[in-house]
Amino acid sequence: MKPINFAVIGYGGMGSYHVHTIMAKEPEKIRVIGTYDISEIRQSISADDGYYCYESFEEVLADTTIEAVLIATPNDTHKELSIQAMKAGKHVVCEKPVAMNTKEFDEILSVSQKTGMHFMVHQNRRWDPDFLIVQELYRNKQIGEIFQIESRVQGANGIPGDWRHLKKHGGGMMLDWGVHLFDQLLYLTGSPIKKIDADLSDILGDEVDDGFHCFIIFENGLRAIVEVGTTNYSKLPRWYVKGTEGTAKIDDWDLSGEMIVATKEENLSSPTPIQAGVGLTKTMAPPSEEATQKLPFPEVPRNPSFYHNFFEVIRYDAEPFVKNEEVRCVMVLLDQILSDGRIAEKERVLTIV
Amino acid sequence: MKPINFAVIGYGGMGSYHVHTIMAKEPEKIRVIGTYDISEIRQSISADDGYYCYESFEEVLADTTIEAVLIATPNDTHKELSIQAMKAGKHVVCEKPVAMNTKEFDEILSVSQKTGMHFMVHQNRRWDPDFLIVQELYRNKQIGEIFQIESRVQGANGIPGDWRHLKKHGGGMMLDWGVHLFDQLLYLTGSPIKKIDADLSDILGDEVDDGFHCFIIFENGLRAIVEVGTTNYSKLPRWYVKGTEGTAKIDDWDLSGEMIVATKEENLSSPTPIQAGVGLTKTMAPPSEEATQKLPFPEVPRNPSFYHNFFEVIRYDAEPFVKNEEVRCVMVLLDQILSDGRIAEKERVLTIV
Repeated sequence: MKPINFAVIGYGGMGSYHVHTIMAKEPEKIRVIGTYDISEIRQSISADDGYYCYESFEEVLADTTIEAVLIATPNDTHKELSIQAMKAGKHVVCEKPVAMNTKEFDEILSVSQKTGMHFMVHQNRRWDPDFLIVQELYRNKQIGEIFQIESRVQGANGIPGDWRHLKKHGGGMMLDWGVHLFDQLLYLTGSPIKKIDADLSDILGDEVDDGFHCFIIFENGLRAIVEVGTTNYSKLPRWYVKGTEGTAKIDDWDLSGEMIVATKEENLSSPTPIQAGVGLTKTMAPPSEEATQKLPFPEVPRNPSFYHNFFEVIRYDAEPFVKNEEVRCVMVLLDQILSDGRIAEKERVLTIV
Repeated sequence: MKPINFAVIGYGGMGSYHVHTIMAKEPEKIRVIGTYDISEIRQSISADDGYYCYESFEEVLADTTIEAVLIATPNDTHKELSIQAMKAGKHVVCEKPVAMNTKEFDEILSVSQKTGMHFMVHQNRRWDPDFLIVQELYRNKQIGEIFQIESRVQGANGIPGDWRHLKKHGGGMMLDWGVHLFDQLLYLTGSPIKKIDADLSDILGDEVDDGFHCFIIFENGLRAIVEVGTTNYSKLPRWYVKGTEGTAKIDDWDLSGEMIVATKEENLSSPTPIQAGVGLTKTMAPPSEEATQKLPFPEVPRNPSFYHNFFEVIRYDAEPFVKNEEVRCVMVLLDQILSDGRIAEKERVLTIV
């Protein structure tokens, strides 16, 4: 089967990352023909990289050699560009967040249905090795039944970049990292949400959220904490996962951390009290060495790449790895959090099947 | 001034800790005369330790040489023992939680007022060095304006002990560690609470909470997370404190951890993107070495000890370091959390002046 000819719309940080890193891994399946970017500097970079520079989006749409486009532009332009592309007979890969809100996404989906063109969102963090470990632990019960998952991403740089500060372009951390972290969590659990308490932070004085803290109770009883911060000079672990028989802590994307499980060789209820501050504690004393053991994180299956899957979807009608109905669930959730910073108790907002 | 003659009611873990560790530090001010405990084993330990063993609580009350009692018995007995002691003309030091609920505490306070006997709760964790560092940072603004305080205590031993599993004796982690952590937080901030989202955990299948997660918004804008867990095989830091110009992380009671502040020597908004999982991130890239610096935790003032203060209160009418109105604020809060696991939004429950 011949490769899919792509035009890349938006040749900024993400656009060029797709071209050089992700698409480049599938040379048999993906061929980048050219780019379109409104910035002259990026046009010149694209030319230096050897790609044809389209002079307008219309020129891309009119190019019958192009089968698909990647939309890697600011968030508020995703809808219009995607719709135009599909109406011109192009399949679409779109960066996240897919759109500014669910209403916009529904318009996109409607055009996809009418035109028969495929539309797939690049929720790439489903491939993150740290996430895959958590997903595997959730399945394999190596630390027992998982009852709480804490997913944190913390930086100290504020909100870098230009349009990411602005509401009208879909800036803010909820639409930036939030969309990744909720996508991972909902994809992993497959459970409806029972309740969310969300608190959007405003430390930098921007017009968009510069972070957030969400406490989530799922219908199946699982608790989750999802937190993003942009003024964290020292970091908490990327993942902290509590099971009935152990705890996994993944410190960073380099997969440093530890996984400790109960050996059940000893009665854990009778530890020796320790001095803690100016008091004594038996409850918080460390278990004896025999009572717990450290295990390596599990090996995780390597999933086919995003573009491998996209190719299979286009050429062989395979099932998309990132399904639009899943992406839509996250958008519904984000809409609610962003509209009121808080979701009514016991309101069921999500059903992933 | 002569020392205060004490009888210790309940010679278990806490009672003997008071005698050997805390009271022993103030030999000029506190003299332990005897103990009363219903357990024969503990009576025999007390005799071996050289203390007179009272045969009944009435015998303690009838002993005119005794000026004050320490109540270190299960939580459900605090009220009755304290009231009887004050009615018999004894001052009272009471272990935490002061009572099962605010109603009980109000009965105690009423008797204290009527009898003129002093009643002081041993909220000893106000003296914890880790807490004092956080308190000092809140005051000295070394990491800027503090906007979030996370206070966690995590163990892997479940709920050790006997009566601590049982509701009727006032068991559970909210009344055990919760009362400490909320006392610290309210004492530190001095701000009313605007909103609390509380989630009590039930992992062990006990009839009491085996931990909890609370997200708190104070009237002054401060956010706080208070969390206790008893099935945490790997731990998060004891304190994680976010300021506008830095972050302090105190890992454990041994004061290990780090404090990182912005140097402001460099524009923090332009970091180099890093590979994170299968994606790129500029926002979460580490700041350059010049952009931040590590500082030692601040030196903290050494407060006079609990029993030093108690002595001054009794002998010189000094101001108590642990005030009953502060303790009552925490009880009101715990009542509400324990009664519904959740406090109505924007209900003002606490005013500490």
